[in-house]
Amino acid sequence: MAGNRSKLAELRRRQAAIAVEIAKLAGPATSPFAPKAFPALPPVGGVRLSSAAAGVRYQNRADVMLAELAAGSVVAGTFTRSETRSAPVLWCQERIAALAAKPAAGTLAIVVNSGNANAFTGRHGRQAVETVMQATGRVLGVPAGNVFMASTGVIGEPLAAERVTAKLEELAAGLSAGGLEGAARAIMTTDTFPKGASAVIDIDGVPVTISGFAKGSGMIAPDMATMLVFIFTDAAIEQRVLQAAVSELTDRSFNSITVDSDTSTSDTLLVGATGKAGMVPIANRRDPRYRAFHGALGGVMQDLAIQVVKDGEGASKIIAITVTGAKSDRAARKIGLAIANSPLVKTAVAGEDPNWGRVVMAVGKSGEAADRDRLSISFGDILVAENGWVAPSYSEELGAAYMKRPELEIAVDVGVGAGRATVWTCDLTHRYIEINADYRS
Amino acid sequence: MAGNRSKLAELRRRQAAIAVEIAKLAGPATSPFAPKAFPALPPVGGVRLSSAAAGVRYQNRADVMLAELAAGSVVAGTFTRSETRSAPVLWCQERIAALAAKPAAGTLAIVVNSGNANAFTGRHGRQAVETVMQATGRVLGVPAGNVFMASTGVIGEPLAAERVTAKLEELAAGLSAGGLEGAARAIMTTDTFPKGASAVIDIDGVPVTISGFAKGSGMIAPDMATMLVFIFTDAAIEQRVLQAAVSELTDRSFNSITVDSDTSTSDTLLVGATGKAGMVPIANRRDPRYRAFHGALGGVMQDLAIQVVKDGEGASKIIAITVTGAKSDRAARKIGLAIANSPLVKTAVAGEDPNWGRVVMAVGKSGEAADRDRLSISFGDILVAENGWVAPSYSEELGAAYMKRPELEIAVDVGVGAGRATVWTCDLTHRYIEINADYRS
Repeated sequence: MAGNRSKLAELRRRQAAIAVEIAKLAGPATSPFAPKAFPALPPVGGVRLSSAAAGVRYQNRADVMLAELAAGSVVAGTFTRSETRSAPVLWCQERIAALAAKPAAGTLAIVVNSGNANAFTGRHGRQAVETVMQATGRVLGVPAGNVFMASTGVIGEPLAAERVTAKLEELAAGLSAGGLEGAARAIMTTDTFPKGASAVIDIDGVPVTISGFAKGSGMIAPDMATMLVFIFTDAAIEQRVLQAAVSELTDRSFNSITVDSDTSTSDTLLVGATGKAGMVPIANRRDPRYRAFHGALGGVMQDLAIQVVKDGEGASKIIAITVTGAKSDRAARKIGLAIANSPLVKTAVAGEDPNWGRVVMAVGKSGEAADRDRLSISFGDILVAENGWVAPSYSEELGAAYMKRPELEIAVDVGVGAGRATVWTCDLTHRYIEINADYRS
Repeated sequence: MAGNRSKLAELRRRQAAIAVEIAKLAGPATSPFAPKAFPALPPVGGVRLSSAAAGVRYQNRADVMLAELAAGSVVAGTFTRSETRSAPVLWCQERIAALAAKPAAGTLAIVVNSGNANAFTGRHGRQAVETVMQATGRVLGVPAGNVFMASTGVIGEPLAAERVTAKLEELAAGLSAGGLEGAARAIMTTDTFPKGASAVIDIDGVPVTISGFAKGSGMIAPDMATMLVFIFTDAAIEQRVLQAAVSELTDRSFNSITVDSDTSTSDTLLVGATGKAGMVPIANRRDPRYRAFHGALGGVMQDLAIQVVKDGEGASKIIAITVTGAKSDRAARKIGLAIANSPLVKTAVAGEDPNWGRVVMAVGKSGEAADRDRLSISFGDILVAENGWVAPSYSEELGAAYMKRPELEIAVDVGVGAGRATVWTCDLTHRYIEINADYRS
């Protein structure tokens, strides 16, 4: 017993020493999935961006960005469905609806600050948004209603609007077509890398560019898991057609990822189209050019969504979960998210444990129809279970070897229909707990 | 860079290996909320129990139990809603429906094994249940249809039914009115303490006893988070009235707790009433004696439910979350569970961080109506937020001091109606990750 105790103490000393070595080697914990460099995003005709250090909360780094879209641009968006969504989200929703009904005259703009989410700030929150919108309108010479806003950071604390407005002249003076990377960095909170993606396609013989960036979802309390995404294109497309594409593609990208099932009060995706590519506008979804645009935009959105998962708090593995055989695509997505959000599945992945029983459990709890006796599960190319039982060809050794990979694919067929969906998530590790529980000393 | 990465991977492997050694040496950590001793449960007239070591999976401990209920007893139950529920659950649901339609002749029985859940075992699973039911019926001299079964443990592995049936004679010979504690211990899997509760009330001048026990939800992979609950009473009550009470009370007890949002394939609650107290049967819910019985049964169920939370994996704190002002009681429970299941709320509690912003976030994501500008939040007696913003009287110091308590109360009023509910959960700690991710060497 005493021998055990001293052996335990020795093991704990060794454990602590290894933790120190890991911390030294790993440095400020960058996601293991971070790319070597920010991708070179092609500038988008009619779009200029800039960023500045306003000291909203962070010091010595850019924390505000301004995007300007040439006159004639349209903007579509999707937002958090939270009942407690922030003042900037409510403003954007109202402006999108208004500009869809009556297109804007003049340039459009987007102002974003990091460090303060301006959420759960009551009447003050609405006033702060209006102050920034009015000031931006004055500086750019457009109505306040042409300006969109997004905020990410602490919630429940008043946003110091004057720190943002004090930087508007500097931001306007610094606008440039190459400002994408600076803007991507300015909106980061606890992200460990900036996220960008782009596509260039040929429509009507002219190159059409789509470039975008995102932030999320590294979150250190008391910051929130806000996801902000801004995508710009020089395509010419009517607002309601763009909105239809964005809404549909959001389900297959940003609404198909989860880090920890929690939903921010501030999630915002804005897609602006300037029409500067020099093409005849896409006016409806039957236009054959719509498919090409839709495919390229979907690719950029999915790329950015997966980058958010790759920067999930404490992620050591990422997992693509494909569900087939569900009653509908919607049911397949719900089952996929039940698996992706299961702490038992996520901890099993962290532990490199091919625990397919937990996948069965998660399918069962989703509330969607599944045929227990036709259920099949694969890890990558390895058939794990079929017809409601472990596959004869499966061995724990095969499964365990597969689970050592950093990027995993789990496929589940639930045997009741033709619905299918893919969702992405990361594992649940000690680092998640450290980030979210241990931040106080 | 590549060198660092492989060095890091090696360090993490060594860290995990040491964690496994520590776990082996340290043994299972008992919950800090474990009672000093199992409560003295009063025997219930007409109920006898026994337990034995069958070696289903565990060695050197009791892992099967038998309960016998005198002729004339009725049984009600509630079960997991999982689409992938186990063979024993399907059997129990079928038998309850059949016996509700046509009451049983002779004694009833319940057989339970731990170590193997007999879930996701295809046709073999159904055969194993039938084998055990037939054998139990033969040993007790009753039809197989009078016997109920529950199983908890590994899923996807065939249950060795013969190990259970080999012990039936021994179990039948050992039946005694005092067998409650032994049975409570035999059904444990990774629970760190056995859970019992009881009540004795006066109905028609005679004492009516309710005694029950539960297991859950310590889970070490590949075990599942199964919750099993068995409650016995000598009350005389018609089956459909008992079933109505059990169904209603389950919502306010076992369906109002959550450890990690995952749902077992095997959750089973059975309540047996023998009628041996010597009272005129309660034949409908308008009977004034129904309220007294209902209150006492509800108390026992809630007591057991909270004990399950107190044994939640890695729990260092337990949290009672009361939601008021919702559109309905059901909406209030959904909001409460959204808060209780939020990893961000649970890690904040683990870190003793009064992070009320995460509570706002969880209310928002529940999908139920809430008035952002009338929302109020209290931690114990401390008003944290009101009218959609932080309360003027609140300070972080007050909140931080409160969060140091082991048992916390969070109250949220969402300002739209009269619905209310209380749910219980525990925090999310490193120990949860250790239990669920680090068990493999």
